[in-house]
Amino acid sequence: MRVTLLAAQSLDGFITKHDQAGTDFTSEADKLHFRKALGGFDCSVMGGETYRVARDFLRTRLSTQRCRVVLTRSPEAYAAEAVPGQLEFSNVGAATLVKDLAARGFQHCALLGGAQLHGLFFQAGLVDELWITVEPLLFGQGTPLLAKRVDVRLSLLSSEKLSADTLLLKYRVQR
Amino acid sequence: MRVTLLAAQSLDGFITKHDQAGTDFTSEADKLHFRKALGGFDCSVMGGETYRVARDFLRTRLSTQRCRVVLTRSPEAYAAEAVPGQLEFSNVGAATLVKDLAARGFQHCALLGGAQLHGLFFQAGLVDELWITVEPLLFGQGTPLLAKRVDVRLSLLSSEKLSADTLLLKYRVQR
Repeated sequence: MRVTLLAAQSLDGFITKHDQAGTDFTSEADKLHFRKALGGFDCSVMGGETYRVARDFLRTRLSTQRCRVVLTRSPEAYAAEAVPGQLEFSNVGAATLVKDLAARGFQHCALLGGAQLHGLFFQAGLVDELWITVEPLLFGQGTPLLAKRVDVRLSLLSSEKLSADTLLLKYRVQR
Repeated sequence: MRVTLLAAQSLDGFITKHDQAGTDFTSEADKLHFRKALGGFDCSVMGGETYRVARDFLRTRLSTQRCRVVLTRSPEAYAAEAVPGQLEFSNVGAATLVKDLAARGFQHCALLGGAQLHGLFFQAGLVDELWITVEPLLFGQGTPLLAKRVDVRLSLLSSEKLSADTLLLKYRVQR
């Protein structure tokens, strides 16, 4: 199973504008790309905070096409929202989760935030690709792409313009 | 006078690797680009810490082609190193410095770090362009591109590959 981190960031590497949760800063071009790109993944993983921000939106869009897994310390708190195979809550470690999903036959997993989860996945060597949208913005402060110290080398797969000012950069993680 | 910030960063926005001062992480392609690009500037500005890291290198390369100005709280401490028109030390504010350099007839000013100075120049609205080298690296921690909270919108001027994995992105600051 291939794990791909999808995120939109400011040029200076922040996935939120200052302390504003969510991705209101992203362009229409990125939103379009993101929706389209997600169609290529049969499962996705996000952290509890990312889920809470997107919750209302996500719960109206559940389908058997993609299994969403929320990693949270308290899966039991979300028991009423769980839909097996569509929206699941788990507190296993990142490596165990990836192994379990692969064993269930999933092939393309999208890692969807937040910064803590990105950091954990990178520290455990679980990420294969990054698809990063670079918005033409500078924030100086905000949530970083990765909330952990890492030392990762990438190979550039492609660079394309999503619009006049927004870039989509795809990288493979070197092992 | 046009002010251009030149910097190399990791994909996640750090201009140093963790707490290692300097730019040892940058590629040969970036070093080549940087030397060549600097030839197009008739003056440059850097902070005291950036100067101290590059000091030995810089002092052997002084020329009348480019006036280097170091912004420091203690210009008097560097009096013995000053060469008027080539290497100057000043403690005036960023806006005053830009005004003074323009009045002396300089046309293209390179802003060369560090993060504090970048932040001050952006907060004062003094930067016209950014030329950012994006190295195929993730650090998670390090010195950020800008050490101040800002809210800046950019226009993408160009995107080019300096090597297979290293990008050079040029932006204009929207006013």
